[in-house]
Amino acid sequence: MVPSPVVNVYPLSSYTFGSKEAKMEKDTSVADRLARMKQNYMKEGMRTSVEGILLVQEHNHPHILLLQIGNSFFKLPGGRLKPGENEIEGLKRKLTSKLAPTASSIQPDWQIGECAAMWWRPNFETLLYPYSPPHITKPKECKKLFVVPLSEKQYFAVPKNLKLLAVPLFELYDNVQRYGPVISAIPQQLSKFNFNAINN
Amino acid sequence: MVPSPVVNVYPLSSYTFGSKEAKMEKDTSVADRLARMKQNYMKEGMRTSVEGILLVQEHNHPHILLLQIGNSFFKLPGGRLKPGENEIEGLKRKLTSKLAPTASSIQPDWQIGECAAMWWRPNFETLLYPYSPPHITKPKECKKLFVVPLSEKQYFAVPKNLKLLAVPLFELYDNVQRYGPVISAIPQQLSKFNFNAINN
Repeated sequence: MVPSPVVNVYPLSSYTFGSKEAKMEKDTSVADRLARMKQNYMKEGMRTSVEGILLVQEHNHPHILLLQIGNSFFKLPGGRLKPGENEIEGLKRKLTSKLAPTASSIQPDWQIGECAAMWWRPNFETLLYPYSPPHITKPKECKKLFVVPLSEKQYFAVPKNLKLLAVPLFELYDNVQRYGPVISAIPQQLSKFNFNAINN
Repeated sequence: MVPSPVVNVYPLSSYTFGSKEAKMEKDTSVADRLARMKQNYMKEGMRTSVEGILLVQEHNHPHILLLQIGNSFFKLPGGRLKPGENEIEGLKRKLTSKLAPTASSIQPDWQIGECAAMWWRPNFETLLYPYSPPHITKPKECKKLFVVPLSEKQYFAVPKNLKLLAVPLFELYDNVQRYGPVISAIPQQLSKFNFNAINN
Protein backbone atom coordinates (compact mmCIF):
# COMPACT_ATOMS: atom_id res chain seq x y z
CA MET A 1 0.00 0.00 0.00
CA VAL A 2 1.11 3.55 -0.64
CA PRO A 3 1.29 5.39 2.66
CA SER A 4 -0.79 8.58 2.70
CA PRO A 5 0.84 11.58 4.34
CA VAL A 6 0.05 11.59 8.06
CA VAL A 7 -0.85 14.72 10.00
CA ASN A 8 -0.96 14.56 13.80
CA VAL A 9 -3.92 16.43 15.26
CA TYR A 10 -4.25 17.23 18.94
CA PRO A 11 -7.45 17.87 20.88
CA LEU A 12 -8.82 21.40 20.97
CA SER A 13 -8.44 21.16 24.75
CA SER A 14 -4.63 21.08 24.34
CA TYR A 15 -4.69 24.73 23.37
CA THR A 16 -5.22 27.85 25.42
CA PHE A 17 -7.00 30.88 24.04
CA GLY A 18 -6.73 34.46 25.19
CA SER A 19 -7.42 37.78 23.56
CA LYS A 20 -5.42 40.78 22.41
CA GLU A 21 -6.16 44.18 20.96
CA ALA A 22 -8.52 44.39 18.01
CA LYS A 23 -7.18 44.13 14.46
CA MET A 24 -9.59 46.04 12.34
CA GLU A 25 -10.20 45.15 8.71
CA LYS A 26 -8.56 47.68 6.42
CA ASP A 27 -11.74 48.10 4.42
CA THR A 28 -15.28 48.57 5.55
CA SER A 29 -16.94 47.24 2.40
CA VAL A 30 -16.27 44.78 -0.39
CA ALA A 31 -16.21 47.69 -2.88
CA ASP A 32 -13.50 49.45 -0.82
CA ARG A 33 -11.53 46.24 -0.64
CA LEU A 34 -11.61 45.69 -4.40
CA ALA A 35 -10.71 49.35 -5.03
CA ARG A 36 -7.69 49.06 -2.71
CA MET A 37 -6.71 45.81 -4.42
CA LYS A 38 -6.75 47.61 -7.76
CA GLN A 39 -4.61 50.47 -6.44
CA ASN A 40 -2.08 48.02 -5.03
CA TYR A 41 -2.04 46.05 -8.27
CA MET A 42 -1.14 49.19 -10.21
CA LYS A 43 1.82 49.73 -7.90
CA GLU A 44 2.96 46.17 -7.18
CA GLY A 45 1.47 43.78 -9.70
CA MET A 46 -0.22 40.49 -8.84
CA ARG A 47 -0.98 40.09 -5.18
CA THR A 48 -0.01 36.86 -3.45
CA SER A 49 -1.79 35.96 -0.27
CA VAL A 50 -1.07 33.04 2.02
CA GLU A 51 -3.39 31.41 4.53
CA GLY A 52 -2.96 28.66 7.09
CA ILE A 53 -5.10 25.58 7.64
CA LEU A 54 -4.66 24.93 11.37
CA LEU A 55 -6.04 21.61 12.51
CA VAL A 56 -7.28 20.36 15.85
CA GLN A 57 -9.54 17.43 16.70
CA GLU A 58 -12.61 16.81 18.76
CA HIS A 59 -14.40 13.47 19.02
CA ASN A 60 -11.78 11.99 16.72
CA HIS A 61 -12.77 14.25 13.82
CA PRO A 62 -10.54 17.00 12.35
CA HIS A 63 -11.59 20.60 12.91
CA ILE A 64 -10.17 23.73 11.27
CA LEU A 65 -9.51 27.00 13.08
CA LEU A 66 -11.43 29.84 11.46
CA LEU A 67 -11.60 33.50 12.38
CA GLN A 68 -15.08 34.92 12.41
CA ILE A 69 -15.80 38.61 11.89
CA GLY A 70 -19.22 39.63 13.12
CA ASN A 71 -21.79 36.91 12.81
CA SER A 72 -21.34 35.78 9.27
CA PHE A 73 -17.95 36.22 7.64
CA PHE A 74 -15.32 33.50 8.13
CA LYS A 75 -11.69 33.56 7.14
CA LEU A 76 -8.53 31.55 7.51
CA PRO A 77 -5.66 33.23 9.36
CA GLY A 78 -3.23 34.72 6.87
CA GLY A 79 -2.95 37.69 4.57
CA ARG A 80 -1.11 39.41 1.79
CA LEU A 81 2.63 39.06 1.26
CA LYS A 82 4.78 42.13 1.01
CA PRO A 83 6.28 42.56 -2.46
CA GLY A 84 9.07 40.01 -2.80
CA GLU A 85 8.41 38.41 0.59
CA ASN A 86 9.02 34.68 0.97
CA GLU A 87 5.74 32.73 1.24
CA ILE A 88 6.70 30.72 4.29
CA GLU A 89 8.15 33.70 6.18
CA GLY A 90 5.15 35.80 5.17
CA LEU A 91 2.68 33.21 6.42
CA LYS A 92 4.55 32.93 9.73
CA ARG A 93 4.43 36.71 10.07
CA LYS A 94 0.70 36.77 9.37
CA LEU A 95 -0.07 33.88 11.74
CA THR A 96 1.85 35.64 14.50
CA SER A 97 0.05 38.89 13.79
CA LYS A 98 -3.36 37.21 13.85
CA LEU A 99 -2.96 34.55 16.50
CA ALA A 100 0.13 34.99 18.68
CA PRO A 101 0.36 36.90 21.94
CA THR A 102 1.92 40.35 21.63
CA ALA A 103 4.65 39.61 24.18
CA SER A 104 7.65 38.59 22.12
CA SER A 105 8.97 36.04 24.64
CA ILE A 106 6.44 33.38 23.69
CA GLN A 107 6.30 33.63 19.93
CA PRO A 108 5.20 30.32 18.48
CA ASP A 109 7.54 28.42 16.23
CA TRP A 110 5.11 27.92 13.33
CA GLN A 111 5.67 24.85 11.18
CA ILE A 112 4.42 25.38 7.65
CA GLY A 113 3.42 22.18 5.88
CA GLU A 114 2.50 21.52 2.30
CA CYS A 115 0.53 23.74 -0.01
CA ALA A 116 -3.00 22.31 -0.13
CA ALA A 117 -4.62 24.68 -2.61
CA MET A 118 -4.10 27.64 -4.91
CA TRP A 119 -6.92 29.95 -5.94
CA TRP A 120 -6.78 32.59 -8.66
CA ARG A 121 -8.57 35.92 -8.94
CA PRO A 122 -8.84 36.82 -12.64
CA ASN A 123 -10.39 40.27 -12.14
CA PHE A 124 -10.94 42.84 -9.43
CA GLU A 125 -13.99 40.89 -8.30
CA THR A 126 -14.80 38.52 -5.47
CA LEU A 127 -14.75 35.39 -7.67
CA LEU A 128 -11.82 33.02 -7.26
CA TYR A 129 -11.09 29.87 -9.26
CA PRO A 130 -9.02 26.79 -8.38
CA TYR A 131 -7.09 27.13 -11.66
CA SER A 132 -5.69 29.97 -13.68
CA PRO A 133 -8.65 30.65 -15.97
CA PRO A 134 -7.93 30.25 -19.69
CA HIS A 135 -7.47 33.51 -21.60
CA ILE A 136 -6.54 35.37 -18.42
CA THR A 137 -2.95 36.45 -18.91
CA LYS A 138 -2.75 38.76 -15.91
CA PRO A 139 -4.46 37.33 -12.84
CA LYS A 140 -4.87 39.85 -10.05
CA GLU A 141 -4.25 37.56 -7.11
CA CYS A 142 -2.97 34.11 -6.24
CA LYS A 143 -4.08 32.83 -2.86
CA LYS A 144 -2.20 29.84 -1.44
CA LEU A 145 -3.41 27.69 1.43
CA PHE A 146 -0.85 25.78 3.51
CA VAL A 147 -1.37 23.05 6.05
CA VAL A 148 0.02 24.28 9.40
CA PRO A 149 0.60 21.32 11.73
CA LEU A 150 0.23 22.58 15.30
CA SER A 151 2.45 21.54 18.15
CA GLU A 152 1.02 19.64 21.08
CA LYS A 153 0.53 22.79 23.17
CA GLN A 154 0.10 26.37 22.12
CA TYR A 155 -1.29 29.63 23.40
CA PHE A 156 -3.36 31.64 20.95
CA ALA A 157 -4.21 35.30 21.42
CA VAL A 158 -7.17 36.31 19.32
CA PRO A 159 -7.86 39.95 18.37
CA LYS A 160 -10.82 41.19 20.41
CA ASN A 161 -12.96 41.96 17.39
CA LEU A 162 -12.66 38.41 16.07
CA LYS A 163 -13.77 35.02 17.24
CA LEU A 164 -11.65 31.90 16.74
CA LEU A 165 -13.76 28.84 16.02
CA ALA A 166 -12.90 25.19 15.55
CA VAL A 167 -15.18 24.02 12.76
CA PRO A 168 -15.46 20.31 11.91
CA LEU A 169 -14.77 19.12 8.36
CA PHE A 170 -18.29 17.71 8.13
CA GLU A 171 -19.69 21.20 8.75
CA LEU A 172 -17.53 22.77 6.03
CA TYR A 173 -18.16 20.09 3.44
CA ASP A 174 -20.77 20.95 0.83
CA ASN A 175 -21.49 24.24 2.62
CA VAL A 176 -20.41 26.87 0.11
CA GLN A 177 -23.33 29.08 1.12
CA ARG A 178 -22.04 29.60 4.62
CA TYR A 179 -18.26 29.35 4.16
CA GLY A 180 -17.70 30.35 0.53
CA PRO A 181 -15.92 28.32 -2.18
CA VAL A 182 -12.41 28.48 -0.70
CA ILE A 183 -13.12 27.29 2.85
CA SER A 184 -15.86 24.82 1.93
CA ALA A 185 -13.44 23.01 -0.42
CA ILE A 186 -10.88 22.32 2.33
CA PRO A 187 -12.32 18.88 3.27
CA GLN A 188 -11.80 17.66 -0.30
CA GLN A 189 -8.31 19.16 -0.42
CA LEU A 190 -7.32 17.48 2.84
CA SER A 191 -8.98 14.17 2.02
CA LYS A 192 -5.71 12.52 0.98
CA PHE A 193 -4.22 12.93 4.46
CA ASN A 194 -4.44 10.37 7.18
CA PHE A 195 -5.24 12.31 10.33
CA ASN A 196 -3.70 10.81 13.39
CA ALA A 197 -5.89 11.98 16.27
CA ILE A 198 -3.78 12.11 19.41
CA ASN A 199 -5.72 11.95 22.64
CA ASN A 200 -3.94 13.02 25.73
CA MET B 1 9.10 30.87 -2.95
CA VAL B 2 8.07 27.29 -2.27
CA PRO B 3 8.00 25.43 -5.56
CA SER B 4 4.65 23.83 -6.23
CA PRO B 5 4.78 20.33 -7.66
CA VAL B 6 4.91 20.50 -11.45
CA VAL B 7 2.96 18.18 -13.73
CA ASN B 8 3.77 18.13 -17.44
CA VAL B 9 0.68 17.99 -19.60
CA TYR B 10 0.77 17.25 -23.32
CA PRO B 11 -1.78 18.26 -25.94
CA LEU B 12 -4.74 15.97 -26.55
CA SER B 13 -3.49 15.75 -30.15
CA SER B 14 -0.38 13.85 -28.91
CA TYR B 15 -2.54 10.84 -28.21
CA THR B 16 -4.17 8.33 -30.51
CA PHE B 17 -7.50 6.77 -29.75
CA GLY B 18 -8.92 3.52 -31.03
CA SER B 19 -11.57 1.15 -29.79
CA LYS B 20 -11.72 -2.37 -28.44
CA GLU B 21 -14.43 -4.80 -27.41
CA ALA B 22 -17.12 -3.56 -25.05
CA LYS B 23 -16.65 -3.82 -21.27
CA MET B 24 -20.11 -4.06 -19.86
CA GLU B 25 -20.94 -2.77 -16.41
CA LYS B 26 -21.40 -5.63 -13.96
CA ASP B 27 -24.67 -4.17 -12.70
CA THR B 28 -27.60 -2.80 -14.60
CA SER B 29 -28.94 -0.60 -11.81
CA VAL B 30 -27.71 1.31 -8.78
CA ALA B 31 -29.71 -1.03 -6.54
CA ASP B 32 -27.97 -4.08 -8.06
CA ARG B 33 -24.61 -2.39 -7.61
CA LEU B 34 -25.20 -1.65 -3.94
CA ALA B 35 -26.52 -5.17 -3.36
CA ARG B 36 -23.37 -6.66 -4.95
CA MET B 37 -21.24 -4.30 -2.87
CA LYS B 38 -22.92 -5.61 0.27
CA GLN B 39 -22.37 -9.24 -0.75
CA ASN B 40 -18.70 -8.57 -1.41
CA TYR B 41 -18.35 -6.72 1.88
CA MET B 42 -19.66 -9.75 3.77
CA LYS B 43 -16.99 -11.90 2.12
CA GLU B 44 -14.04 -9.50 1.89
CA GLY B 45 -14.56 -6.53 4.18
CA MET B 46 -14.05 -2.91 3.19
CA ARG B 47 -13.70 -2.40 -0.52
CA THR B 48 -10.83 -0.26 -1.79
CA SER B 49 -11.14 1.22 -5.23
CA VAL B 50 -8.53 3.19 -7.13
CA GLU B 51 -9.04 5.62 -9.96
CA GLY B 52 -6.70 7.58 -12.21
CA ILE B 53 -6.74 11.29 -13.01
CA LEU B 54 -5.23 11.39 -16.51
CA LEU B 55 -4.39 14.86 -17.72
CA VAL B 56 -4.02 16.37 -21.17
CA GLN B 57 -4.19 19.98 -22.29
CA GLU B 58 -5.94 21.99 -24.93
CA HIS B 59 -5.61 25.76 -25.37
CA ASN B 60 -3.18 25.80 -22.46
CA HIS B 61 -5.81 24.56 -19.98
CA PRO B 62 -5.71 21.14 -18.25
CA HIS B 63 -8.35 18.58 -19.23
CA ILE B 64 -9.16 15.29 -17.54
CA LEU B 65 -9.93 12.05 -19.35
CA LEU B 66 -13.35 10.74 -18.38
CA LEU B 67 -15.20 7.66 -19.53
CA GLN B 68 -18.81 8.26 -20.41
CA ILE B 69 -21.45 5.53 -20.30
CA GLY B 70 -24.52 6.38 -22.31
CA ASN B 71 -25.31 10.06 -22.39
CA SER B 72 -25.09 10.99 -18.76
CA PHE B 73 -22.90 8.95 -16.46
CA PHE B 74 -19.19 9.88 -16.19
CA LYS B 75 -16.44 7.99 -14.45
CA LEU B 76 -12.70 8.02 -13.99
CA PRO B 77 -10.82 4.97 -15.28
CA GLY B 78 -10.13 2.59 -12.41
CA GLY B 79 -11.94 0.06 -10.30
CA ARG B 80 -11.93 -2.19 -7.31
CA LEU B 81 -8.78 -3.80 -5.96
CA LYS B 82 -8.66 -7.54 -5.45
CA PRO B 83 -8.40 -8.47 -1.75
CA GLY B 84 -4.82 -7.73 -0.66
CA GLU B 85 -3.82 -6.23 -4.01
CA ASN B 86 -1.28 -3.39 -4.02
CA GLU B 87 -2.91 -0.05 -4.87
CA ILE B 88 -0.41 0.98 -7.52
CA GLU B 89 -0.37 -2.42 -9.23
CA GLY B 90 -4.14 -2.58 -9.02
CA LEU B 91 -4.56 0.83 -10.60
CA LYS B 92 -2.16 -0.11 -13.42
CA ARG B 93 -4.15 -3.31 -14.02
CA LYS B 94 -7.41 -1.34 -14.14
CA LEU B 95 -6.03 1.36 -16.43
CA THR B 96 -4.77 -1.29 -18.81
CA SER B 97 -8.10 -3.11 -18.73
CA LYS B 98 -10.03 0.11 -19.42
CA LEU B 99 -7.73 2.01 -21.76
CA ALA B 100 -4.95 -0.11 -23.24
CA PRO B 101 -5.05 -2.06 -26.48
CA THR B 102 -5.63 -5.78 -26.07
CA ALA B 103 -2.45 -6.74 -27.93
CA SER B 104 0.13 -7.29 -25.21
CA SER B 105 3.08 -5.98 -27.21
CA ILE B 106 2.19 -2.33 -26.66
CA GLN B 107 1.13 -2.24 -23.03
CA PRO B 108 1.63 1.24 -21.64
CA ASP B 109 4.07 1.76 -18.83
CA TRP B 110 1.72 3.63 -16.49
CA GLN B 111 3.32 6.07 -14.06
CA ILE B 112 1.24 6.50 -10.93
CA GLY B 113 1.70 9.85 -9.22
CA GLU B 114 0.50 11.12 -5.89
CA CYS B 115 -2.79 10.39 -4.21
CA ALA B 116 -4.98 13.47 -4.78
CA ALA B 117 -8.08 12.44 -2.85
CA MET B 118 -9.71 9.81 -0.69
CA TRP B 119 -13.46 9.36 -0.45
CA TRP B 120 -15.31 7.21 2.06
CA ARG B 121 -18.58 5.34 1.75
CA PRO B 122 -20.06 4.94 5.23
CA ASN B 123 -23.04 2.80 4.21
CA PHE B 124 -24.27 0.73 1.30
CA GLU B 125 -25.53 3.88 -0.35
CA THR B 126 -24.34 6.14 -3.13
CA LEU B 127 -23.14 8.93 -0.79
CA LEU B 128 -19.39 9.40 -0.42
CA TYR B 129 -17.57 11.82 1.91
CA PRO B 130 -14.06 13.31 1.68
CA TYR B 131 -13.37 12.19 5.27
CA SER B 132 -14.14 9.18 7.37
CA PRO B 133 -17.43 10.31 8.92
CA PRO B 134 -17.44 10.50 12.73
CA HIS B 135 -19.16 7.60 14.47
CA ILE B 136 -18.68 5.32 11.45
CA THR B 137 -16.39 2.59 12.65
CA LYS B 138 -16.78 0.33 9.62
CA PRO B 139 -16.78 2.25 6.36
CA LYS B 140 -17.83 0.13 3.40
CA GLU B 141 -15.48 1.58 0.81
CA CYS B 142 -12.45 3.78 0.46
CA LYS B 143 -11.96 5.26 -3.00
CA LYS B 144 -8.53 6.70 -3.80
CA LEU B 145 -7.79 9.00 -6.72
CA PHE B 146 -4.24 9.14 -8.08
CA VAL B 147 -2.69 11.59 -10.51
CA VAL B 148 -1.45 9.62 -13.52
CA PRO B 149 1.10 11.68 -15.49
CA LEU B 150 0.90 10.60 -19.13
CA SER B 151 3.90 10.14 -21.37
CA GLU B 152 4.34 12.31 -24.42
CA LYS B 153 2.74 9.78 -26.75
CA GLN B 154 0.27 7.03 -26.03
CA TYR B 155 -2.28 4.89 -27.80
CA PHE B 156 -5.57 4.41 -26.00
CA ALA B 157 -8.08 1.71 -26.86
CA VAL B 158 -11.51 2.53 -25.51
CA PRO B 159 -14.18 -0.15 -24.96
CA LYS B 160 -16.83 0.20 -27.69
CA ASN B 161 -19.66 0.86 -25.25
CA LEU B 162 -17.84 3.81 -23.66
CA LYS B 163 -16.74 7.21 -24.85
CA LEU B 164 -13.47 8.77 -23.69
CA LEU B 165 -13.76 12.54 -23.26
CA ALA B 166 -11.23 15.23 -22.38
CA VAL B 167 -13.12 17.56 -20.08
CA PRO B 168 -11.59 20.93 -19.08
CA LEU B 169 -11.18 21.79 -15.40
CA PHE B 170 -13.39 24.85 -15.84
CA GLU B 171 -16.23 22.58 -16.98
CA LEU B 172 -15.87 20.27 -13.95
CA TYR B 173 -15.55 23.05 -11.39
CA ASP B 174 -18.72 23.84 -9.48
CA ASN B 175 -20.64 21.31 -11.58
CA VAL B 176 -21.67 18.66 -9.07
CA GLN B 177 -25.01 18.26 -10.82
CA ARG B 178 -23.47 16.90 -14.00
CA TYR B 179 -20.32 15.18 -12.69
CA GLY B 180 -21.16 14.26 -9.09
CA PRO B 181 -19.22 15.24 -5.95
CA VAL B 182 -16.09 13.16 -6.64
CA ILE B 183 -15.29 14.32 -10.18
CA SER B 184 -16.45 17.92 -9.72
CA ALA B 185 -14.00 18.35 -6.79
CA ILE B 186 -10.94 17.43 -8.88
CA PRO B 187 -10.14 21.05 -9.89
CA GLN B 188 -9.85 22.03 -6.23
CA GLN B 189 -7.78 18.94 -5.44
CA LEU B 190 -5.38 19.64 -8.31
CA SER B 191 -5.20 23.38 -7.65
CA LYS B 192 -1.86 23.16 -5.84
CA PHE B 193 -0.10 21.81 -8.94
CA ASN B 194 1.65 23.92 -11.51
CA PHE B 195 0.66 22.50 -14.84
CA ASN B 196 3.38 22.77 -17.41
CA ALA B 197 1.59 22.75 -20.76
CA ILE B 198 3.94 21.34 -23.37
CA ASN B 199 3.11 22.29 -26.94
CA ASN B 200 4.73 20.28 -29.64
